[in-house]
Amino acid sequence: MIVDWQTLKAAIADARTTLTSVTRSTPLIFSPGLSARCAGPIYLKLENLQYSGSFKYRPAIYNILTELEAAQRCGVVTASSGNFACAVAMAAKRNHVAATVVARPSIAPFKLARIKRFGADVIICDDDYASRENVVEEMAESQGMLRLHPHGSVATIAGDATVGFEIIEHLPDTARIVVPTSGAGLLSGIAMAVQQESKPLLVYGAQPKANGTLKESLRLGRRQGRDDIQTVADGLTAAIPGKLGFEIAKRHVQGVATVSEESLIEATRLVFEEEGQIIEPAGAAGLASILEGSIDCSVGPTVLVVSGGNVSPNGWARWVEQT
Amino acid sequence: MIVDWQTLKAAIADARTTLTSVTRSTPLIFSPGLSARCAGPIYLKLENLQYSGSFKYRPAIYNILTELEAAQRCGVVTASSGNFACAVAMAAKRNHVAATVVARPSIAPFKLARIKRFGADVIICDDDYASRENVVEEMAESQGMLRLHPHGSVATIAGDATVGFEIIEHLPDTARIVVPTSGAGLLSGIAMAVQQESKPLLVYGAQPKANGTLKESLRLGRRQGRDDIQTVADGLTAAIPGKLGFEIAKRHVQGVATVSEESLIEATRLVFEEEGQIIEPAGAAGLASILEGSIDCSVGPTVLVVSGGNVSPNGWARWVEQT
Repeated sequence: MIVDWQTLKAAIADARTTLTSVTRSTPLIFSPGLSARCAGPIYLKLENLQYSGSFKYRPAIYNILTELEAAQRCGVVTASSGNFACAVAMAAKRNHVAATVVARPSIAPFKLARIKRFGADVIICDDDYASRENVVEEMAESQGMLRLHPHGSVATIAGDATVGFEIIEHLPDTARIVVPTSGAGLLSGIAMAVQQESKPLLVYGAQPKANGTLKESLRLGRRQGRDDIQTVADGLTAAIPGKLGFEIAKRHVQGVATVSEESLIEATRLVFEEEGQIIEPAGAAGLASILEGSIDCSVGPTVLVVSGGNVSPNGWARWVEQT
Repeated sequence: MIVDWQTLKAAIADARTTLTSVTRSTPLIFSPGLSARCAGPIYLKLENLQYSGSFKYRPAIYNILTELEAAQRCGVVTASSGNFACAVAMAAKRNHVAATVVARPSIAPFKLARIKRFGADVIICDDDYASRENVVEEMAESQGMLRLHPHGSVATIAGDATVGFEIIEHLPDTARIVVPTSGAGLLSGIAMAVQQESKPLLVYGAQPKANGTLKESLRLGRRQGRDDIQTVADGLTAAIPGKLGFEIAKRHVQGVATVSEESLIEATRLVFEEEGQIIEPAGAAGLASILEGSIDCSVGPTVLVVSGGNVSPNGWARWVEQT
């Protein structure tokens, strides 16, 4: 894939301006408790506090605003079983846009309920990547609906990049950022923001061992997918890294750590114990990678992006409860 | 009680300076979802993100820092079965101070575990106000321990006041602030900050119907207590308003709303549904009062102080789960 870097950079600059007034600049908190446990200064970027409960609101609303007239006329459609769908539903509703979500049968009931509550139509299709793509493609073509990509498009990565700008603004001496990843959208967006600001800091990905596709793709030098992903981190189940995200990651990402299911749950629990936040296991992947010792955080501030908090209270409580 | 306003104001100014570097300036977020439900612009001051999980860390650490040498030499003791105890335990540990907490047998197991984890000694005494006071008094006298008051002292109210300053700084055009209350410490601290900044905004308290002591005290013009308080808001069970807090509230608080147990649980649930935050029912008292229509929020920004989030995951999940 040949990347049009000029177009990408222009979109990122545009997203940065556009999103200031319509997204929440989420808190970046220093965690004394996690820092003590990790033996290095740990900060959390709390995107679970973003509108719709995850960072995905940024690319969702940016996609819609950049083509608002068409979106309002024809509606939008996306293939997502999770946070991007929640975000599209909310962003669409706020902008008087009809939204349709194409989801897998395995969609988390909590997320399905949120998507519906936010007012989107939901179509459940067969449980494989190709089926979903086909349904979305068909709806986009037959009904003229605007197709929104969860992690692959220029507009999506531009929206994702705003997380990176906020981190750099809030904590200019950040030494490294660790980003939960599967499709590589948020990871590559943040890496682009770091490039654009000419910061010497390092950007890492963290993904479940159960879905090590980005790590494997980077090792092979070509995109590698899989369809049989079973992980507690239901937010990190993209079947294959996006083309554009992969190209960016190849150039600008320091490395990707894979983490066990046990570490994801332990990290989810610790974010509650130390900071009182309910987050989904996907959002805890960065902390999990530090706990496993895969990424050294001893020198300089480490920012862990907590990507989302859309999780069932009962399911979450079972993971974290100890007393 | 004759209030020494000069001393109080000096302490508040001192706390404001002292606490800047040792407490977290917590996020003040605008909530579109809650605003739509309440038909007025609603902001949440997220003190559940304060160190130790509640605003109580402010008065706890201020008390300790103002008498650090004595605290380090003799230790500190407090009567609290909840957030103040958690806060004292954490603030003491960070400052190499020994802490003892005198708690009721009915202390929430989750809070008891936190207090112990933070390293404080815990003494369980009889389940009435007088017994606890006696035990604390005796320890303070016999062992020279520094006695910290959860809501009654000048130092405590000075620490509490910093929440008010932060709200005014972040949102200068705030029209009203609603504060969960029982002992009147946080409420009166915030009211003093508002006075000190000469802001025209109104300060309200919100407390469970099951413990309407402050409302009743204000009606009678004298402090009225009770000992048989049963409420889901275990953080709002002070048996009687503090003397100083009551005097301040008489002068500077617009009114106190009392709320039902059902509203407290519904408000707790809504803060998760709309903003993804796990909070304790006490922290939801402000929202509960708005939902019940006791305080009009239609004109100008309303800030609801979410006072804490120290709650058992399983217990909380049972309250909020719907799907």
